[in-house]
Amino acid sequence: MQLRASLFPPCPVPYSLLIRNCGQLLTLAGGPTDRPLTGAALTDWQVLTDAFVACEGERIVAVGPMAALDEAKVTAETVVVDAGGRVVMPGLVECHTHLVFAGNRAQEFQRKLQGESYLDILASGGGILSTVRATRAASEAELLANALRHLEGFRRYGITTLEAKSGYGLDKDTELRLVRVAREAGRRQPVRVVPTFLGAHVVPPEYKGRGAAYLDFLATEVLPELRGEAEFVDIFCEEGAFSVPDSRRYLARARELGFGLKIHAEQLHDLGGSAMAAELGAVSVDHCDYLNAADAGRIAAAGATVAVLLPLVPLFLRQSTYAPGRQLIEQGVPVALSTDFNPGSCPSKNLWLALSVACLKMGFTLKEAVAAVTLNAAWALNRAAEIGSLVVGKRADMLVLDLRDYQEIPYWLGENPVQQVIIGGQAQQDS
Amino acid sequence: MQLRASLFPPCPVPYSLLIRNCGQLLTLAGGPTDRPLTGAALTDWQVLTDAFVACEGERIVAVGPMAALDEAKVTAETVVVDAGGRVVMPGLVECHTHLVFAGNRAQEFQRKLQGESYLDILASGGGILSTVRATRAASEAELLANALRHLEGFRRYGITTLEAKSGYGLDKDTELRLVRVAREAGRRQPVRVVPTFLGAHVVPPEYKGRGAAYLDFLATEVLPELRGEAEFVDIFCEEGAFSVPDSRRYLARARELGFGLKIHAEQLHDLGGSAMAAELGAVSVDHCDYLNAADAGRIAAAGATVAVLLPLVPLFLRQSTYAPGRQLIEQGVPVALSTDFNPGSCPSKNLWLALSVACLKMGFTLKEAVAAVTLNAAWALNRAAEIGSLVVGKRADMLVLDLRDYQEIPYWLGENPVQQVIIGGQAQQDS
Ligand SMILES: [Zn+2]
Ligand SMILES: [Zn+2]
Repeated sequence: MQLRASLFPPCPVPYSLLIRNCGQLLTLAGGPTDRPLTGAALTDWQVLTDAFVACEGERIVAVGPMAALDEAKVTAETVVVDAGGRVVMPGLVECHTHLVFAGNRAQEFQRKLQGESYLDILASGGGILSTVRATRAASEAELLANALRHLEGFRRYGITTLEAKSGYGLDKDTELRLVRVAREAGRRQPVRVVPTFLGAHVVPPEYKGRGAAYLDFLATEVLPELRGEAEFVDIFCEEGAFSVPDSRRYLARARELGFGLKIHAEQLHDLGGSAMAAELGAVSVDHCDYLNAADAGRIAAAGATVAVLLPLVPLFLRQSTYAPGRQLIEQGVPVALSTDFNPGSCPSKNLWLALSVACLKMGFTLKEAVAAVTLNAAWALNRAAEIGSLVVGKRADMLVLDLRDYQEIPYWLGENPVQQVIIGGQAQQDS
Repeated sequence: MQLRASLFPPCPVPYSLLIRNCGQLLTLAGGPTDRPLTGAALTDWQVLTDAFVACEGERIVAVGPMAALDEAKVTAETVVVDAGGRVVMPGLVECHTHLVFAGNRAQEFQRKLQGESYLDILASGGGILSTVRATRAASEAELLANALRHLEGFRRYGITTLEAKSGYGLDKDTELRLVRVAREAGRRQPVRVVPTFLGAHVVPPEYKGRGAAYLDFLATEVLPELRGEAEFVDIFCEEGAFSVPDSRRYLARARELGFGLKIHAEQLHDLGGSAMAAELGAVSVDHCDYLNAADAGRIAAAGATVAVLLPLVPLFLRQSTYAPGRQLIEQGVPVALSTDFNPGSCPSKNLWLALSVACLKMGFTLKEAVAAVTLNAAWALNRAAEIGSLVVGKRADMLVLDLRDYQEIPYWLGENPVQQVIIGGQAQQDS
């Protein structure tokens, strides 16, 4: 059959979707395809002018200049989106969120604004454990409704794939429920959801002072049930959470069970968690605000671990230390950007704002920042073969921006440039 | 006739618009009505729960708890907006923008991100004078189209009144054109536009080294033609722009001609322009990043001058000094917040982001910040008798937010909480 098909070429299949008249098409193509973009490759990617993208079903089947468009494949069946000279780019990949939780911490934020210290707030039952209490108490339906509402917000910003961590349950039942809710939310709407297990978010009250025992419990009792359910296992390696040796032992066990690895590290102190996780082959090391140059060199040498930087977190927490983005790029570390959407340290879905703040506070240039929310963010989710650039064979996740020049992307600070979202070859109606 | 009307009460006039089921109605009422809110009055304003607002035409005619709603006035003619328990508040008043200009400076922003200095950029024709060249070269129709596009963006963020400064012409014809365009833009769409003349933005090339002569020209040749056209006269008092003595002389002449006064001052240096302008009776002194405590005391004593703080400007310019908002509030200075929307130092229309950054970087509490983008911003435009709070007799400019608790306003960083915009009693369709 294979042979016959190649001897007798099939009738031309019409395009199911065509975006024509892309003033600038940010393909993100042209760099290495076997590893994340680093150094000059972060800025060398291809921008086509006066171009098109064509799809069959959920896949991209042709990309090129308008002059090369095969009009024979544009039929009455083809959905045609005329970009009218606007910028077209891959859908954003949001590679680090804590999507599923109950309630919010707006009142706690007010108390902070009015001068209360974090310790005062903790002492009166605030902080992460207040979200844990609310999340444990919430029904699965309520958690799902929240997650779907947040996903709709993300979609309006042009996010087409989103990682969703558990971590506000901290007991077996609730943590399994959070992973289930993330998966179900992914099924119920078009944004693709990648579930990560972050049971090791903090030590729960039930294990106070016994962090290693809690990790042991997770590795023995919970992780085995999550095979095929959660793709990655993550841990918060920080003073007051989990130590580097405990994190190493836990991540190694997760790896043995077949999970991909992630870590929250170097957010507030330089403990060495990022380099440790890179050595274990983690797909990403996240935060990195206090990462030192020697450890950055180790991560660069590891070659496949992406540093996921979260510029809105220090802004929201009123901290002055941002991850050394420029330095990481110059050391050859692959970088991605994310909001870290969560109720405590960054309740923002505006990844475009994160991109602008990375330019302003971390020394990213525009092309580096665009790569960091598309192709490199896909690498941080082990999805770079599927998404993150506009090349033949990848999924047709694409955005039409209401801009004529992609240099304007970080410039209109805080605004949402998205005019049209396309996910898996389907133009979204309400975007 | 007046007497008869009061002897024989008229048939009840039906409400033309009713917002019912406001979970929280931020009225901004309850403070002094003869001066801007200061000190405790910034936070003491009234929040009604389970409330309604009713309008006849463009005016608010009733505000109260749902239990007090006169259902007899709700007829088939009444447009009913059910807020469904959400937050309802006055439309935002954006009291400081440079709305009318041609082009943008996104490329210059890229060059800055790539490390070029401001002086390099100036030397190669960049900076404010590049916007002046583009604006002088643009047709009136092009400028109007740009202004209308930006106004549409502002409206989506819930801005219902907006101040628009000239200042990218710096010659008589272009400056008059910019004021005309601002006025025409106000006529063509629902957001109310308040034009300010900022011919004294910088010294134009034609008057290089002769700033005083340029101000003389403006006062003699241009201001007289703007009576009835521009409501306020503004000047940029700063090193490299106009000195305090020159600014004083110019503003005094503008006052004699009947204009309200505004000033850009203490943005980069503490020269004393703000206190000088307050002494002249300016409605607002804008920026104030370097305002000293003694001058703040003078402004507080003046009693009627609002300090308009622009928190997104230092963020966009990568500066670390923000206006001392907390200190100004504690000294009794009336404060307002604005984006400063302009192509050079802050191309953002996201006043909600400005509000959040004021909380994070200037020490505003939420209620202070909400007052600063509504009633006090109306004072900064001499419009507090008309707009800025939801009280009987004022214009019905209102927002329904997709929030159930107004404490969430600054919390969802960078997002737009607006679900429905109402301007002059008219529900806007596309918001
Ligand atoms: Zn996180
Ligand atoms: Zn300004």
